[in-house]
Amino acid sequence: MPPKTALRQSDENAWLDWVRRQVRPAAVGGLRLGIGDDAAIVRPRSGWEIAVTTDLMIEGTHFRRGIDRPEDCGYRLAMRGLSDLAAMGAEPWMLFFSALWPKDEPPAWRRSVHRGLTQAAHAAGATLAGGDVSSGVHACFDIVALGQIPRGQALRRDGARPGDRIFVSGTLGQAAWGRQMLDHGHIPQNPRERSALRRCQRPCARWELGEKLRGLASAAMDLSDGLSSDLDRLCAASGVHARVDETSLPLAGPAGVGQNFLALALHGGEDYELLFTVPRRKLAALTQRTGASIQLTEVGEILPVRRARKSQPRLWLQAGNGRSQPLAPQGWDALRPHTRH
Amino acid sequence: MPPKTALRQSDENAWLDWVRRQVRPAAVGGLRLGIGDDAAIVRPRSGWEIAVTTDLMIEGTHFRRGIDRPEDCGYRLAMRGLSDLAAMGAEPWMLFFSALWPKDEPPAWRRSVHRGLTQAAHAAGATLAGGDVSSGVHACFDIVALGQIPRGQALRRDGARPGDRIFVSGTLGQAAWGRQMLDHGHIPQNPRERSALRRCQRPCARWELGEKLRGLASAAMDLSDGLSSDLDRLCAASGVHARVDETSLPLAGPAGVGQNFLALALHGGEDYELLFTVPRRKLAALTQRTGASIQLTEVGEILPVRRARKSQPRLWLQAGNGRSQPLAPQGWDALRPHTRH
Repeated sequence: MPPKTALRQSDENAWLDWVRRQVRPAAVGGLRLGIGDDAAIVRPRSGWEIAVTTDLMIEGTHFRRGIDRPEDCGYRLAMRGLSDLAAMGAEPWMLFFSALWPKDEPPAWRRSVHRGLTQAAHAAGATLAGGDVSSGVHACFDIVALGQIPRGQALRRDGARPGDRIFVSGTLGQAAWGRQMLDHGHIPQNPRERSALRRCQRPCARWELGEKLRGLASAAMDLSDGLSSDLDRLCAASGVHARVDETSLPLAGPAGVGQNFLALALHGGEDYELLFTVPRRKLAALTQRTGASIQLTEVGEILPVRRARKSQPRLWLQAGNGRSQPLAPQGWDALRPHTRH
Repeated sequence: MPPKTALRQSDENAWLDWVRRQVRPAAVGGLRLGIGDDAAIVRPRSGWEIAVTTDLMIEGTHFRRGIDRPEDCGYRLAMRGLSDLAAMGAEPWMLFFSALWPKDEPPAWRRSVHRGLTQAAHAAGATLAGGDVSSGVHACFDIVALGQIPRGQALRRDGARPGDRIFVSGTLGQAAWGRQMLDHGHIPQNPRERSALRRCQRPCARWELGEKLRGLASAAMDLSDGLSSDLDRLCAASGVHARVDETSLPLAGPAGVGQNFLALALHGGEDYELLFTVPRRKLAALTQRTGASIQLTEVGEILPVRRARKSQPRLWLQAGNGRSQPLAPQGWDALRPHTRH
């Protein structure tokens, strides 16, 4: 008589079987071999390239158990990866999900995280194709997102040129405002607050916009760490400076309601909107191609680097009275988390 | 005068600049855009497919600070991913490295992990192409490995058929033995012990063997969790049973030296050797193609599933006297870490 353990499926195998059952086979083209082997095998469309991005989501840093719902964690995690694909102009394709599961949560918690992740993947037309699992004290997730993009058409950070106009999609600072509500247990009192909380819990990456910007935007990236930090990076990559027009920023709320919406818009992270630059000669084409389907706001202009300014701040914030002051990157710094707003 | 923070580079940007300087540009073909944008852009060879795998490495589970050297952690992490590529018969190509860095370690510790990782990548002809960073209390790493493989030639787990012979590369149980030495602070006393410790610290994934097995092996996977668990998974995927010949196993040491080398070989993980099956008619070709360059050992045979045995153990261990007993999967279970040997 064999020992009983011989007949018992391992915890890991049982979990992977469950995960596999959640995935719709053949949901996307090009997946030759999915979950269950040592690696997935994928094949891009002929003549297309692949965008690959990885994003960590850490308990205590990016979310807190007891405050964030597990479904929302999974959803937001997937959107983090999908937002990077959007920033490259790539079409969402595959997700790989590595999870360090907390030992003190039941399998139902893991399933909830997975459900949120799967919802986001389906919304984007992507499929889960693999990952890894382990267990520990604190949850730690890593999402890998693969997207497809026609050869040579990726949107990059390093193409912004002086005179290009700076655009953002949607509203800025909503997610950071929603995060404050969550952290302080504030129940939303009006549609504006509900919208901000929703944006924090269920952000929506802009992959459709990203695909439309191919051939139009001179540079693009996603707003994950806050405008002041992300625009600073775009300018550093492109070797340019920039002016942001304070009065043009699409704020999450009006002045005078006890909340500094300007600071949230400048430094608040996790909006997962797109930040991009467009040469003046392509502005008409931008309007034509994007239409009214999504809110786009011109928020400033790319400036040349003047010799005397080389050691000066890259970003300037211009107030309504025309005066400019330096805009320091004060958004999220992954290696200095205490700076978070 | 701008505030001083305006001129200070963020910790994250400074770190990414350092990482970028470690990477040899154009070390591999097909990397269109590397570290520094929202995503990397990669392009496989025409007519080739891509293998994608992710592997977690968790402090307290897979390594311990103070016991494992940071260089070894980085090296072993890369080899985890490269070993999965080997199991698919894929050629190493790109690595993406997501790291939750412990706050109480200086940047030198991070650089050491990176150096180990880069050494392993170079040994395999792969390059670091991206990743993500965060910081927290405990280290948590995720390695993503991409490999290239000619269309349709990937080695899979599900192709083993009754009558196929089972092979393993190298020696089994060395890494688990080395782990015991590390954990107990045992200083190696002889070449055999030194070799086992080295295997634990600096495993060597078998990508060259994996590439040679294309078209020869009916099924393959890497030995990361222990033979009893990994062969069980291979048999489950292939819908077969298997017999392992106890006396044929390439043990890490001889009997009677106070160490159960058989148990280490059966259930010890992290050897990163290859486990594969070969149809009888291809045995001669196997010898011809692999030559004496690497130690390969035939350790058993794939068996059919008999109706009466359907609910019985998939694996049987046959002793030197010809008697068989069930072999339960007792290797590493990622969601039940207390079972680790």
